[in-house]
Order: sequence, then C-alpha cells, then structure tokens
Amino acid sequence: MQTTGRTSKTELRVRWGETDAAGIVFYPNYYVWFDVATHELLRGRFERGFGFPIIESGAKFHAPLFPDDSITIESVVADVRTKAIRLEHTVRRGETLIATGFETRVFVKLLVGGIEATPLPDDLRNFLRGS
Amino acid sequence: MQTTGRTSKTELRVRWGETDAAGIVFYPNYYVWFDVATHELLRGRFERGFGFPIIESGAKFHAPLFPDDSITIESVVADVRTKAIRLEHTVRRGETLIATGFETRVFVKLLVGGIEATPLPDDLRNFLRGS
Amino acid sequence: MQTTGRTSKTELRVRWGETDAAGIVFYPNYYVWFDVATHELLRGRFERGFGFPIIESGAKFHAPLFPDDSITIESVVADVRTKAIRLEHTVRRGETLIATGFETRVFVKLLVGGIEATPLPDDLRNFLRGS
Amino acid sequence: MQTTGRTSKTELRVRWGETDAAGIVFYPNYYVWFDVATHELLRGRFERGFGFPIIESGAKFHAPLFPDDSITIESVVADVRTKAIRLEHTVRRGETLIATGFETRVFVKLLVGGIEATPLPDDLRNFLRGS
Repeated sequence: MQTTGRTSKTELRVRWGETDAAGIVFYPNYYVWFDVATHELLRGRFERGFGFPIIESGAKFHAPLFPDDSITIESVVADVRTKAIRLEHTVRRGETLIATGFETRVFVKLLVGGIEATPLPDDLRNFLRGS
Repeated sequence: MQTTGRTSKTELRVRWGETDAAGIVFYPNYYVWFDVATHELLRGRFERGFGFPIIESGAKFHAPLFPDDSITIESVVADVRTKAIRLEHTVRRGETLIATGFETRVFVKLLVGGIEATPLPDDLRNFLRGS
Repeated sequence: MQTTGRTSKTELRVRWGETDAAGIVFYPNYYVWFDVATHELLRGRFERGFGFPIIESGAKFHAPLFPDDSITIESVVADVRTKAIRLEHTVRRGETLIATGFETRVFVKLLVGGIEATPLPDDLRNFLRGS
Repeated sequence: MQTTGRTSKTELRVRWGETDAAGIVFYPNYYVWFDVATHELLRGRFERGFGFPIIESGAKFHAPLFPDDSITIESVVADVRTKAIRLEHTVRRGETLIATGFETRVFVKLLVGGIEATPLPDDLRNFLRGS
C-alpha cells in the first residue's frame, strides 16, 4: 500500500508585493506558491506536449505571513490515479504552521486547440509514487 | 430555516496578465476574483476597525478561460455562523460553468498588533442572511 | 502634423489584492492597468497571428491609491511609427492626478518559435492615428 | 566624485504564473522583481516608521523570458540625493541581457494618516553610497 509519494521542499521569502493593505499576505498568493512548489517537484519529469492543468484546489490558513518572512513549502504527491494526481502542500515559517493546501491535477496531452486527459506514463507514475 | 443569504453578481473581463503560458487563466486568479466578489458583496457593510480574514478556501475548475473572456461571478452567503461566514462563488462565461469555489471568513476586530474574532453585529448578520 | 491619435478611457476599481502592506497600491499594478487599457484600445483591431509586445515602459507616481478607489485611465496613441507605437496613460481618481505612464510597443508577426517586427497595416495605422 | 553606490545581486527563477498567453513573462512582473531586488538591497538598513515609496520607474525590454528561466538581477544605487535615491536594475539570463530598469524612491517618515519626505540619515546615506 502506498501512503505517500514523491516529496519536495521549496523555500521562499514573502515578497512585499504579495502582501495587502491588512499588512499580511493576500491569500491567493498561497496558491501561487503551491504552483511554484508543484513545478519544483515536477521539473523535467515529463515531455513537452504534455501538461498538468488543475481541476481542484483548496487551502486552510492557520496563521498570517508578513513581508520578508522566510517560509518553507513541503509538498507531497498524496495520491496517484490513472490520469490524475493530488499534491498536498504545507507552508511553515520556522516551526509555525501557516497553511495547508492541496491541488488535484490531470495529466493531459496538448492537442491543436485543446487538451486530452491521458494516462500517466509508467516512468512518471513511478517517479510520482516515489518509487 | 435559512438556505441561502445575501447574493451579489460581479462582472469581469479576463485580463491578459491573468493568463499564463498555457494560454488560459492562471488558477490563483480565480481566488483573486472571489476576493473581488466578496468585497463587492460586503462593501460599506461594516465599520472601520473590523475585518474578514480568510481561514479556508477552495475551488473546482470545470473549463478554462481565455484572454478577454467576459465572465460573471455569482456569490452567495451560504452560511452565517456566530463569528464566521461561508461564501460560495460560481464563475460563468455566458451559460458555460467555468468554476465554483468557496471562502470561509472570520469576523474580527482589529487590535494594535493583532486581531480578535468577534461575533457579527446584528445588522451585519441580518444583511448577510439577506433578511 | 499629427499631435495625438486614438484615445480610450478605462474605468477600474482598485482591488484589495492590488494593495500592499503600506496600505496603498503596489506600484507594478499600474503597469498591469496600462496593459488593460492598451488591450481596451486595441481590441479587435488586428488579426490573429500578430501581436504588440512591449519594448519600453515608464511611469511617474504622483499620489497614492487606496483599496476600493475608483479610477479612470485615459490612454492615447501618442506616436505611430512604421513598426511601433507609443501609448500614454493618465490615471486619475476623480480630478486628482494619480500617475502618468507610457508604453512603447512593436508590431510583430508571430512565427513558429519567434516573432518578427513588421510594418503596421494601413487600416491599423489609420485607426491608431484616430483618422 | 561618486559614480556608483551600493550594489546587490538577486537570483530568481521565472514562475509559471509570471508568464502570459504569449508564452513569455508578462511585463509588469519585471517591476515586481525590481521591487524584490530593492528590498534585498535595503533589508535591515532603516528603522521601522520609515519607508521608500516610489515616485518614478521605467524599463527597457531587450529579450523575452520564458517559464522556469533562471535570471540574475544586478542592482545599483545610481544616485543618492538628500531625500531620494535612484536604483538601476539589470536583468540577465546567463550572459543574455534581458531588461534594464530604474526606480526613483523618496525616503519618508510614516505619520498617522500620511507620509513626509525626510532627509536620509547619515548611516543610511553612507550605506547607499557604498562607502
């Protein structure tokens, strides 16, 4: 049984422009970071002509972040299905839990004028499972 | 029994800069729009010194959006609790369902150096319930 | 002699997420709005397969903007050259001058794997000149 | 005579979300990076209660950037006036010149409900001059 798959760790510093007039990070930026973290995890792992568009995402926000805060995003491939994966992201500042979130993404072949969901190739599947 | 509360409708046109190299809207921008729609719904409804920070959000993406697409965001206050509300947002391009999402927000008093969750005042509660 | 060309007017409301921890609009967003205004002005005026990438921009910031401020961007095609145009943008909140800026953009044909600067077609040139 | 002042170097990787439907970086993001680079250069160099709001910026774009490109931003304090500074930024991908730009920023004291331009303190001035 597979409990968790491939992991990655992304370190960022909160940009001034990622905050809002409340003095804390504007929440859509957490999803920007999830996307950055997912690109870190997947970089170089599949061929041109394929993609991983998102079909669902979500996040819980536990504590605010301030300008210049240094954060770590731990990502894990929590589920590998035939044509889709679920990634889970945990944002921390030092030991403090800041936010948790997930992304569900479908593997697609890019066609002229569209996309088509397609099964994950074996090598990509194995990589995602961390095996 | 209250099933739905206050609603609002926000019309937007997809900005060129909201798309990404896949030619479609970069997904964190849906949350930017949810935030815009929530501000539309709440505008002028509570006093300075209070706020509605987010504690949870999520979205499902049904169909992509392209540059210049005209969209409508229908928002509804789906739940009104003592100190928190849940908003649900539906994004459509014409008749086409593009995305659905939600935000859970807590009502807070802004203090020096922090915030404190506080019960919704009656007039705000009534407004949110659409009554 | 041609002093000014085609104009357009774009109305926007400052989004909460466009501000930063100083409580005012984060300055790169002015360029986002310039781009929005330029798309307004050019919409539907040239064929697919062509584009107007930017080669220079600049702005002066006269007064800050706050969340929810309603603004007007007046844009004018200030110069039409063989293969390039200069747009000038003025941002106002009511009567108050907020910012001025410009963009220089080159007209290009999109090729496989690149772009090529190309002369403005006559109808586009006439439109840009406001004639 | 002082020709150049304090310098800094900022390394970034282009985020997927920083590109647009043309497949290249959406130009306002260069200003986001200039702001990041300026914060790098100024970090910890002045007290709370002061700020460096922008009054002018500009950029020339020489070559496009693509998703995942690794870039370096070299910044220099090109001018130190009584109450204002000019920073110049150069963006490169390896040896390739991508963009150049500048920011003019005023040193201000943050007051209740406003700001006031104020002379740079000596230690900050010396730091900025690179002396």
